[in-house]
Amino acid sequence: MKQITLSEVASLLSQHDDFKILTHSYPDGDCLGCGYALAFALRKLGKRANVAVDGKLPSKFTYLVKNYEEQDFTPAYIVSVDVAAPALLGESVMEGVDHIDLCIDHHGTNSLDADCKYVDDTAAAAAEIIWEILELLHVEIDEDIAAGIYTGVSTDTGCFLYTNTTPQTHRIAAQVMPYCNWQEINNINFVIKTRAKLRMERLVYKTMEFHAAGQCAIIYTTLAMCEALKSGDDEMEGLANIPRRIEGVKIGITMREKPGGVFKISVRTNDGINAAEFCRQFGGGGHPAASGCSIEGDLGTVKKILVDAAEAYLQ
Amino acid sequence: MKQITLSEVASLLSQHDDFKILTHSYPDGDCLGCGYALAFALRKLGKRANVAVDGKLPSKFTYLVKNYEEQDFTPAYIVSVDVAAPALLGESVMEGVDHIDLCIDHHGTNSLDADCKYVDDTAAAAAEIIWEILELLHVEIDEDIAAGIYTGVSTDTGCFLYTNTTPQTHRIAAQVMPYCNWQEINNINFVIKTRAKLRMERLVYKTMEFHAAGQCAIIYTTLAMCEALKSGDDEMEGLANIPRRIEGVKIGITMREKPGGVFKISVRTNDGINAAEFCRQFGGGGHPAASGCSIEGDLGTVKKILVDAAEAYLQ
Repeated sequence: MKQITLSEVASLLSQHDDFKILTHSYPDGDCLGCGYALAFALRKLGKRANVAVDGKLPSKFTYLVKNYEEQDFTPAYIVSVDVAAPALLGESVMEGVDHIDLCIDHHGTNSLDADCKYVDDTAAAAAEIIWEILELLHVEIDEDIAAGIYTGVSTDTGCFLYTNTTPQTHRIAAQVMPYCNWQEINNINFVIKTRAKLRMERLVYKTMEFHAAGQCAIIYTTLAMCEALKSGDDEMEGLANIPRRIEGVKIGITMREKPGGVFKISVRTNDGINAAEFCRQFGGGGHPAASGCSIEGDLGTVKKILVDAAEAYLQ
Repeated sequence: MKQITLSEVASLLSQHDDFKILTHSYPDGDCLGCGYALAFALRKLGKRANVAVDGKLPSKFTYLVKNYEEQDFTPAYIVSVDVAAPALLGESVMEGVDHIDLCIDHHGTNSLDADCKYVDDTAAAAAEIIWEILELLHVEIDEDIAAGIYTGVSTDTGCFLYTNTTPQTHRIAAQVMPYCNWQEINNINFVIKTRAKLRMERLVYKTMEFHAAGQCAIIYTTLAMCEALKSGDDEMEGLANIPRRIEGVKIGITMREKPGGVFKISVRTNDGINAAEFCRQFGGGGHPAASGCSIEGDLGTVKKILVDAAEAYLQ
């Protein structure tokens, strides 16, 4: 594995063709925005490029693919975007892939195995890196590329809210906004709530518990709750940010029951508490203020494990 | 009254001294951010300047005045910032003021009487205009000025979310961020919720009604609710954005009972519905997507007036 520079990334992309771009499982706005922006850009340079997405593209992101059609070719160069760890590469994404040529990411904890690697953890979103690459490649921006980049930088920063935002994030937004319907993108990602989501939030607020003298807040969803409200992943989005927003909370934990007796845990932290370190105890990881892991067990057991861990961690 | 250019505004400010800067009642982040940024800047230019605020400075904005002390002088030049209408000038603010020399604003509906006026309704926040003036005046940016400008541009755009945001808003944010603790400013204005606010929101969600086939959502707070939760204005903030965020809602109305049998109404709209026009029927006004008015009456009467008006307006 070789750590390379941004201009080396640009060179590799210009030298190769027939790209397969890998995104991570539970695909979010940043990996999808990166994937499609890069694919559209490579196509503009006369190359072939497809984006591999684990499972179905979340319906809210269909605006990213309105001009996208899968191309028919055998992949010759494999690029991952925004994928921090091998476990985040879904089976369907890895079909026919035996190695990764180039890994582009912004997670400081990146543990992917790739021939060449460019990781910049000062970038708020991987889309910032993609944008800088496209500038080096002199790609002419269009609506599809702009929508991908704007989606990446805005979703990974909670619409320029989170502390990972930088002046560069804003400068990139200013550059791409004129080319895409960012108002609609904001509406989809940050504003409009379905009534189903509203119902889910109201239910989730009722599960909120405070521990460690109010420094830890924990909420959960169960399969039964989802069934009662006929809710799916769409209604779950953003829930993870609820607990850490309460005054005094340093560790905000969201537990989501998944089929098979496992809970998917999202941890969000304030005041310099390291969420990635907290999650590593349970085999997870991520960013310093936003990480995740999975824990097997029933609701009470998993909650107790987390609350105990949070209380110990906060001491 | 004379409409003047931005460079004429800058000239007037350099030519005069002993400024009183007027902000609007129910002061928000934009008028306060403008007021203090301008005052600090004028002081840097060797002038005297005070900011007049109606009532007490909301406690969340105390970070704007940590280096501010009232200066002792007789005002010689009166400047209003972000004040759209005469009715928005509180009595205490107007003490000793018999006319306004210069009005700087970004409300297209501006109806203030002033000797000179600069209104740019393409600016997302009045703070954008102030920033452009400070650039013309070659004021060296510092933390106080940056905090004011960042507060103005971020709060008036809901942290770069609302459709009034422009590339210029982002460019200004990128320029001022390095000089101020914008993370803390975001935390204060957009992230942290007190438990009291959480309780208020949960109560308010219970009041939500849908009308006009789901195109109008209306919520309310009453004095009794505030008393039961011991809530004040701090807990009210942001409530106005709740109804219009629900899928399908075109007119979102928030009613807040005030002492004296009057409701303060906030109207937020989607899909090009004109909130200012809607509010003008009741003697109010504001921005196309965010306006307000006051209506006297009891809860049921005022709600019926608003729902009837919304249903008529949506037809």
